[in-house]
Amino acid sequence: MPEYFSEERSVEAVNSRMGQDINPRLAEVMASLVRHLHAFAKDVSLTQEEWELAIGFLTRSGHLCHDERQEFILLSDTLGLSMLVDAINNRRPPGATENTVLGPFHVEGAPVRQMGENISLDGKGESCLFIGRVLDLDGNPIEGARIDIWSDNSDGFYDVQQPDIQPKWNNRGIFVTGADGAYSFVGIKPVSYPIPDDGPVGQMLTSLGRHPYRPAHTHYLITASGYQKLVTHTFVGDDPYLESDTVFGVKNSLVAPFERVDHPTVWRSDFDFVLTPVENRQ
Amino acid sequence: MPEYFSEERSVEAVNSRMGQDINPRLAEVMASLVRHLHAFAKDVSLTQEEWELAIGFLTRSGHLCHDERQEFILLSDTLGLSMLVDAINNRRPPGATENTVLGPFHVEGAPVRQMGENISLDGKGESCLFIGRVLDLDGNPIEGARIDIWSDNSDGFYDVQQPDIQPKWNNRGIFVTGADGAYSFVGIKPVSYPIPDDGPVGQMLTSLGRHPYRPAHTHYLITASGYQKLVTHTFVGDDPYLESDTVFGVKNSLVAPFERVDHPTVWRSDFDFVLTPVENRQ
Repeated sequence: MPEYFSEERSVEAVNSRMGQDINPRLAEVMASLVRHLHAFAKDVSLTQEEWELAIGFLTRSGHLCHDERQEFILLSDTLGLSMLVDAINNRRPPGATENTVLGPFHVEGAPVRQMGENISLDGKGESCLFIGRVLDLDGNPIEGARIDIWSDNSDGFYDVQQPDIQPKWNNRGIFVTGADGAYSFVGIKPVSYPIPDDGPVGQMLTSLGRHPYRPAHTHYLITASGYQKLVTHTFVGDDPYLESDTVFGVKNSLVAPFERVDHPTVWRSDFDFVLTPVENRQ
Repeated sequence: MPEYFSEERSVEAVNSRMGQDINPRLAEVMASLVRHLHAFAKDVSLTQEEWELAIGFLTRSGHLCHDERQEFILLSDTLGLSMLVDAINNRRPPGATENTVLGPFHVEGAPVRQMGENISLDGKGESCLFIGRVLDLDGNPIEGARIDIWSDNSDGFYDVQQPDIQPKWNNRGIFVTGADGAYSFVGIKPVSYPIPDDGPVGQMLTSLGRHPYRPAHTHYLITASGYQKLVTHTFVGDDPYLESDTVFGVKNSLVAPFERVDHPTVWRSDFDFVLTPVENRQ
């Protein structure tokens, strides 16, 4: 008598169906997915009505996705999965700057600026001098490091979210270090903002008693030959959402000082980035 | 120093964010979902590229969903989740007829027929007399049981899949038992068919070395006052896909005899359905 599907051997029933000659990594990932998916349904004794709610949630999320909106990434972000995948794939030695999520607002092709230039093209917000160095693990400067920077404007929107209002490349720019590894540019002290919350993920956050805000941060994507790509933010330390970032992106080491200076900018933020050699990948 | 998200305490970081006054069942389900989702990512060390593939898979699945197509249900079916939820919510005592998945092709409002009537309106396929009784756990007949029946046609399509080709209500009908609990109707010996496999789920099945077929079956939805709703199929025992139903719907107890009789129908299939009292819900 063949052994069919049953509650007890549900995982085995599904996973034993896989063919022999399939991609071994796919087989590993799918077998684990089925194991955890079934364990979840069993642990909570998922009801038929809850299953239908989940199908409806995924369907509405899919219908909302288009070029400018990715509801499944928001779902992954707010469930901590994006940060977990980032953490798993970017384990770094002590002293190296930690990674955090890329987010949906990075754009390729920002203009390369001269050191010290101002990237705040709309003149709004509180100006801030960002200054520091790009270093290796021994504290030596890294020459030729390419620092790609982006942040929201003083209303909490990235330029790509307001193409009719903000100048193109507002609060974006690329800077390349010289022999001293130093960088500096003028931007704004960023502000906190909510992720798009008018869809299923926003409804989920409300049902969970959570807010949709991210604490104020400036994005950095730093590359240099021989070093691991660093995707990170620096955070403003006194932000009210620092301890409740809705996408869990904050790390202690990424909270930067913001010192009030008043001249020539309103603020100054000093931060050194420490890159990890490629061969150090863990 | 606040404790931010880390690989080690990722689950705690996310679940501790839930509010105090939220629906306790939602809190239980979401906490378990996050626990298993993170355990999955950790178990396989999910890469950034695999995460992106998953986001793309969900997005394409969502875009394919419309009134006549539900890719997320197909995904749930082919990963065994639909059968698992069905099993968890329909545990039955020994002797009771087992449940299996409803599937996407049930339609409300099929015509009520007289016992013995023919529901094969297109005259295609091999005719079959379906005959038996609806009983309680003690073997007593149940009067007034409403038997809602549907199956594919000889080409493997339900009438709703071919509204321009098949007569409305082809291979569908409702029969109500009398005092003897007996039922009988003429239909066709059903045939195996593939689930819709031209989307992401079909691609997944191909990648996993799996076929998209369901073994031949006739659907039954049986209701009677005081008894649990029975959603089930009977399966044709010699079907080549019986042991590899792509949605895992087959159970030993649901494989029915199909006896060749040649007159007045080509086949005869005897099957008794045993209902479980409502108070017996486990």
